[in-house]
Amino acid sequence: MQTVFHIQTSGPGLHEFTDEAARFVRDSGIREGLMTLFVQHTSCSLLVQENADPDVRRDLQEFFRRMVPSSDDPSMGWLLHTDEGPDDMPAHIKSALTAVSLSIPVSAGRPALGTWQGIYLFEHRHGAHVRRVVAHLGT
Amino acid sequence: MQTVFHIQTSGPGLHEFTDEAARFVRDSGIREGLMTLFVQHTSCSLLVQENADPDVRRDLQEFFRRMVPSSDDPSMGWLLHTDEGPDDMPAHIKSALTAVSLSIPVSAGRPALGTWQGIYLFEHRHGAHVRRVVAHLGT
Amino acid sequence: MQTVFHIQTSGPGLHEFTDEAARFVRDSGIREGLMTLFVQHTSCSLLVQENADPDVRRDLQEFFRRMVPSSDDPSMGWLLHTDEGPDDMPAHIKSALTAVSLSIPVSAGRPALGTWQGIYLFEHRHGAHVRRVVAHLGT
Repeated sequence: MQTVFHIQTSGPGLHEFTDEAARFVRDSGIREGLMTLFVQHTSCSLLVQENADPDVRRDLQEFFRRMVPSSDDPSMGWLLHTDEGPDDMPAHIKSALTAVSLSIPVSAGRPALGTWQGIYLFEHRHGAHVRRVVAHLGT
Repeated sequence: MQTVFHIQTSGPGLHEFTDEAARFVRDSGIREGLMTLFVQHTSCSLLVQENADPDVRRDLQEFFRRMVPSSDDPSMGWLLHTDEGPDDMPAHIKSALTAVSLSIPVSAGRPALGTWQGIYLFEHRHGAHVRRVVAHLGT
Repeated sequence: MQTVFHIQTSGPGLHEFTDEAARFVRDSGIREGLMTLFVQHTSCSLLVQENADPDVRRDLQEFFRRMVPSSDDPSMGWLLHTDEGPDDMPAHIKSALTAVSLSIPVSAGRPALGTWQGIYLFEHRHGAHVRRVVAHLGT
């Protein structure tokens, strides 16, 4: 069983879609299986992270911003791929450092997440985007 | 088929559980399939790495320690999420930089690992923890 | 259904094998399912990245080269595992920072990649290697 989640973003940061993913699993009627998420872009990524303190998301985003500065930062003067804006090549690098696909077991009809885990799309571009995440649910 | 591995850790580093995973596959009787591992925490992660020279594990841990210092290190003064200890937010960051899920094909009744590959839980916190890894085995 | 791709590399960089993966899916006759790729080595990795501008691949490789320098670089003097050459331990680190497995949904008989996505083996060693990627295709 497959579906596509469309996630609206508006600049860098983590956008949670745990509820949408859990609803897809519930509606399928599958009690035990495996849900795989795959993002069809190379300038954002997928993350399972803590869903309690919002500061965790802010710190994550800030760490990646410092580790991979914009291409107009002097330390990044060696980048070649700059035509699509100063946030584009850093976004590809952040994508390579995180995940394009995630697989989460389904147990008792729900994604088998830990108590504090949420599922996030991690946007790396500055503008507004609609991101496509393909979900596959198997047994 | 699913199970949960409980992995006891006692500080940062790599804890191998290749044998437990191989036993789960063997006991299932499945000859060809796919094993997916998912860790139910956001301050440790999963890794497939070299299982020969222990220095590889030590160097990996040390690289991540240098890349993401404790939040009491002056270079990390910008972190907001520090209430749970100086090792907590760095652990979330290291988790984002590695993997929360791994999928390993099963061939001839065994995980299809390369000659030098082992399966590890990578603990990022300083204290002792019991970590839960959900394993799903499908065909 | 499973197969093994053998990918010849000749030094660090991204080697595309999207066509081989798509052919494996097509030949299987499976219309909807999940393809999982797993690389049987710990000094190279798997990546889904932009397949349009070759500068993206060059910049990715260069970013990782700068982030994890050779072990003969003075900044890496703390590494212990140096017997297998100055590119070996950095390759293990780059492998930990990227992916050993990738799962890509199959829709309408094709890998459900985004418009600009290609599937790559990311070689981290300097010499020539034949790399094994196990592919598992399920429903």
